[in-house]
Formats: sequence, C-alpha cells, structure tokens
Amino acid sequence: NEVHCVSITFSARHKQMQRDQDTRKMIHCIKVGISLVLVSLLYLLNPVFKQLGENAMWAIMTVVVMFEFSAGATLGKGFNRGLGTIIGGGLGCLAALFAQSIGIGRVGNSIIIAASVFILGSFATYLRLVPSIKKRYDYGVMIFLLTFNLVVVSVTRVNVKVWELAGERLLNILMGFIVCVCVNLLVFPLWASDELHDSIVSRFLDLANTIQGCLGKCTKMINEKENQPCSSFNVCKSVLNSKSKDESLANFANWEPWHGKFGFSYPWERYLKIGEILRELAAFILAMHRCLEASKEPMATLRESQWVYLETCEALESKVACVLQELGDSMKQMMKCNAKGCVSEQLKAAREDLSFIISTFKMAQLEDDQVLSIASF
Amino acid sequence: NEVHCVSITFSARHKQMQRDQDTRKMIHCIKVGISLVLVSLLYLLNPVFKQLGENAMWAIMTVVVMFEFSAGATLGKGFNRGLGTIIGGGLGCLAALFAQSIGIGRVGNSIIIAASVFILGSFATYLRLVPSIKKRYDYGVMIFLLTFNLVVVSVTRVNVKVWELAGERLLNILMGFIVCVCVNLLVFPLWASDELHDSIVSRFLDLANTIQGCLGKCTKMINEKENQPCSSFNVCKSVLNSKSKDESLANFANWEPWHGKFGFSYPWERYLKIGEILRELAAFILAMHRCLEASKEPMATLRESQWVYLETCEALESKVACVLQELGDSMKQMMKCNAKGCVSEQLKAAREDLSFIISTFKMAQLEDDQVLSIASF
Repeated sequence: NEVHCVSITFSARHKQMQRDQDTRKMIHCIKVGISLVLVSLLYLLNPVFKQLGENAMWAIMTVVVMFEFSAGATLGKGFNRGLGTIIGGGLGCLAALFAQSIGIGRVGNSIIIAASVFILGSFATYLRLVPSIKKRYDYGVMIFLLTFNLVVVSVTRVNVKVWELAGERLLNILMGFIVCVCVNLLVFPLWASDELHDSIVSRFLDLANTIQGCLGKCTKMINEKENQPCSSFNVCKSVLNSKSKDESLANFANWEPWHGKFGFSYPWERYLKIGEILRELAAFILAMHRCLEASKEPMATLRESQWVYLETCEALESKVACVLQELGDSMKQMMKCNAKGCVSEQLKAAREDLSFIISTFKMAQLEDDQVLSIASF
Repeated sequence: NEVHCVSITFSARHKQMQRDQDTRKMIHCIKVGISLVLVSLLYLLNPVFKQLGENAMWAIMTVVVMFEFSAGATLGKGFNRGLGTIIGGGLGCLAALFAQSIGIGRVGNSIIIAASVFILGSFATYLRLVPSIKKRYDYGVMIFLLTFNLVVVSVTRVNVKVWELAGERLLNILMGFIVCVCVNLLVFPLWASDELHDSIVSRFLDLANTIQGCLGKCTKMINEKENQPCSSFNVCKSVLNSKSKDESLANFANWEPWHGKFGFSYPWERYLKIGEILRELAAFILAMHRCLEASKEPMATLRESQWVYLETCEALESKVACVLQELGDSMKQMMKCNAKGCVSEQLKAAREDLSFIISTFKMAQLEDDQVLSIASF
C-alpha cells in the first residue's frame, strides 16, 4: 500500500536547494562588503584615525582573514586568532626581554633570538602536523608563530614601549573581531549546524530516490538500449565523498552558540555517525548498481522466466526507500521518528519478502546489502 | 600456482611508510625553522635593517604564511600571494587616485573609497565561492582583497609616496618568497607529486591485501566466534575517503617543476581517475565484507555441503588480489605493466572460474563485483 511514497520530485527539491544556496552566497558576499566598509571607517574617520594611527591596518587584516561563510567558522577563526596573538605576543616579549637581560652584547642577543625563532618555529610547525591539533587549532598555531616572530625580532628595534605596541595591536585585532562577529552573527547569520543538518537530511532523501530508481531503471534498460550516464552514480559518489565536508561542518558547528532549533551541546558526533552509515549505504548501492548493469542479459532472462520475483524485489526496494525517506523526514522535522512501529514493521515485512526470495535461491545477495545496512540503524 | 603472491607483510610495509612520513615531517619542521631564522636576519643584521626598516615585517609574514609541506603547495601559495598583492595594490592605488582626482572634498572622497571597498569586497568574496576559483586561487583572491583594502584606505593617510611604499612592501614579500622557495625546493624537497604517486600505489597493495584476507578470514570466522573490529574495513574506508586528499595533492603537483622521475605535464588527471576507480573497488569490497559478515550461518552450511566451490572462490580472490598487486608494483616502478599478457590471462581464468561457479547458481553475485571493477581498468 505504501509502496510509492517516494514521490517528491527529485529535481524540484534540488533546484530549491540550489536557489537557497545561491541566496546564502549572495548574503555572505554583501556581509563581507559591509564589514569591510565598517572597518575601513577606522581609517576614514578623522577622530578615530588620530587615536589609532597605522595600527588600524591590523583591524582590516583581521576582518579579511577572519570573515568566513558560517558563523561557527568565523568564531573558531576569531578564537584561534585571539589566542594565537596573545600567547605568541607574550612569549615573544618574554624571549626578547630574556635575551636583553642576559646582556651579552648585540651579537649574543641576536644569536639567542635566532635560536628561539628556530626552536619555536620548528615546534609550532610540528604541532600543525599533529592531526588533532591541525583539525581545530591549525590557524591559531600559525598566528602564534607569526606573532611570536614579529614581536621577538621587533622588540630590539622599535623605540616605543613593547607592551604599549602589543596592547594597541591587540586592541585593533579586537575591533576587527567585534566587527566580524557582529555582522556575521547578527545580520542573517548562516549557521554551519543548519547546513550539516540539511545536508544529512537531503542525503537520506537522495539515497531513497536512488534505491527507488534502481530497479525501475533496470526494467527499462533492456527496452532503451542506450544507457545514459545515470545520475544515481553521481548521487552515490557525492555521498561517498562527503566525509571531509561533514567533519569540517561539525567542527564549525561546535563553535556555534545556542540558536534557533539547536540547543547547547548538540550531538554532532551522532550526525557524523549517521553520515558514516549513509556512506556505507551509498557504497552498497553503488556496488549493486554496477552488478545490475553488468548482468543485463541474465536479468532479461530472469525477467522473462520469473516475473513474480522481480516484482517482489521492486516492492522490497520501494519499502526500503520508503523507510529511508521516513527517517529523513522525521530528521528534517527534528522529532523522534514517530513512525517507529511502522518503520520496523516495514523492515520486518521486507525481511520476510527477502527470505522468501532467498529461499528460492535465485536473486539472493543483492537486496541483502540494503536491509543489512538499514538494520544497523 | 600464483595464488599466494600477496605475501609482502602488510604491517611491515605500513610501519615503513609511517617511518618515512615521520622523517618527512621532521625535515619539514627543521626547514621552517631555518627559513624563519634566515628571514629574521633582515631584522637582526644592522646594515640590512637600515635599508628595509619596519617593512621587513612583510617578509616574515610571507614566510610564515607561505611555507607549506610540499614544494607544489608552497609554489602555488607564493604565486597566489604575489599575483594577489600586485593586482590588489595596483587597483587600490588606481581607486585612491581616482577618488582624489575627482576632488569633491574629504567626505566625497571617503564615500567613493567606501563604495569601492564594498563593491570589490563583495565581488572578491563571490569569486572565492566559485568552486573552480576556490580550488586553485582562493588564497590569491584573499590576498588581493587584503592588499586592495590596505592600500586604498592608507593612500589618503600616508605621507610617503604611494608607489614607493608599495614597491618596498613588494620587495619584502619577494624576499620572503625567495627564502621560502630556496629552502623548500633546495633542502630535501618534499614533492606532492611523489606523495600522490606513493599513496595510489599503496592503495593498490592495501586493497589487494584486503581481498586476499577476505575469504581467509571468513573461513576462520566460525571457528573463533569473537570477530575483532577488522582492519580491512578501515582500509576500505580510508580509500573511500581519499578523494579530497587526492585532489589537493594533484592540485599542488600541478605547480611543481620538473624533478626526479617526473617530467613536465605529468598526467595527474589519470592519477585522479585511477583513484576514482580504486574508490569504487573499495566500495565493492566493503559491500562484500558486510555480506560475508551477515551471512555467517548460510556460509557455514555452504562450507559443509560444498567445500569445493568455496575453495574455488578463494583461489579466484587470490587471483584478483594478485592482479591488483601486479598493477600496483608496475606503477611503483613506473613502467608499463609488462605482465600485461599475464594479467589479462589471469583475469580470463578468473572469469572462467567465476562463470563455472555462477553456472551452479550457488555463490553468484559476490565475486562478480570484483571482476567487474577489474575489467573496467
């Protein structure tokens, strides 16, 4: 009865998603323009510039470098930049003062500074290569290294008091940070968490569509000999290649404050796990597709001889696709899959159908993949 | 006769690779330290500093930001930085001069500058979101935006002649660039192209190992009930998730000059294609593994009843694994697979075995995956 529940047109949904994405991009571009103009005012307004002077440069730099697409990415970069600057500046000052306090003349001083540059440079670079640090603090370590170097070499040169200079620059970076965060979070914020959520939901629906279209296309395949480069491969492959995108989105989402439908400490880990399972499912579907494509002639003979089984298979696939779509929909609306009973019932029915087919030992293994991966939910 | 050709111990090879990787990391760290010390000399040496002054800061910044792990990444970033600085600086000067030449007073001047900042800021941000530009020129566009902003707002403020200031900064960036490139390319260079090559080769061998171990483990599985979290899943998954790494390596490799065994215009595209095929193969193997795991009991009964077929399957898998390994080895030594005849012969034999098995209609579909994907080579 519920066999044809996957009926929302695939292309319409994708067009809608594309349009949303374009709108978001435009919003982002305009936001960057606005914050750049705001931070340029530090230079353009006379009274402000008299206070800040050339140091306003650092505010502009901060905005250009820090303003990212999603709120989480911006906050993460800002945090990294702030922390890196403070630690790097502090250590740089300490190293320079230490070199001066020993007081072994200009040359000795320079040698100590060069040694500290070498050691900290190598060490920070090593840290950047450690995967767990690279994932979240790569930018911070780079800024630490940059600030440390600039401070440690310029302390010996600049005539102004070191702490004053450092304080001024920090103040400017802070101003850049504030402009970034205000514009990014208050004007049409784009949340990485929403993007992650939507992309996982749309993957459910995409895969449901692919499974649905799989046997349907297979029956056609003999009739229309020219098999066009099918879109379901691309869907599967894009799902398969989604890991790095998921991880970076989850990383950004970790930085995001409480907003909209998301609370604090949202279970991003589980999103990643679901993504992992969906990738496995995509691998199955891809393998199954290739098998179906390869076995055109056997399928044809099979179809002629036992039409019943093929129809059962088709019904089975529809059920699986339906379950996937229900899961996706319930995730979209962020409620506990209230069709729990229904879902497991359908799965049970599918399993029974499957064992019936298997017992006849004709079309085994193929659908097994799917039920299995569904069962692992 | 050639059934057990995959005998190089998996763990030994991986340990060796790990050691090589660690060595490369250490080399990279030391190289960063060296180039930072070299560029710090611009500050530390009196005569040089008198020439350059505070602008030497830009050289240090260039080194910290530009020095990447592989030669290709460094060259690409350097090129982007150079081009972005020149175009951004040039446009910034033009915009500032245009605003001044109109001569509608300070306020009008500021408005024109703010408008140009907004327009170019939004436009550059839009460019950064276009996938093809993002892939290769993201950093360059960011530097363009940064330079443009700094120049256009400071031209009205700084008393020095604009072109002089721009020239000095450019000179400093050039010095940083030269230090980076010399240290990176002349002292133990680490090529992205080599890394791409090695990672593809090792994937061939990993997958061969996985196929080999597949049925072997399956026969054990009944005897030792506790099935440990198997490493072959991890191998398949890491192969599946290799796309973004491959693409960035190929992108870097494009920047690399002629070196070692690689000539100009090396076919990186083909490496990417091979990577794609290997990912598909990994998807098959993953699906097959899950099927084998799920069907423990059927397998057990199968094994008791028809031991012969299972052995044939095992031999078949060995053949496929062997072919994979031969392909990997010939790729490693960078010569045309001289075992071409042998490889296709083995595949033909495998296919015959397979059709024999299929004809008995007992253990179908499973191995089909592999031959199919191999056949697509």
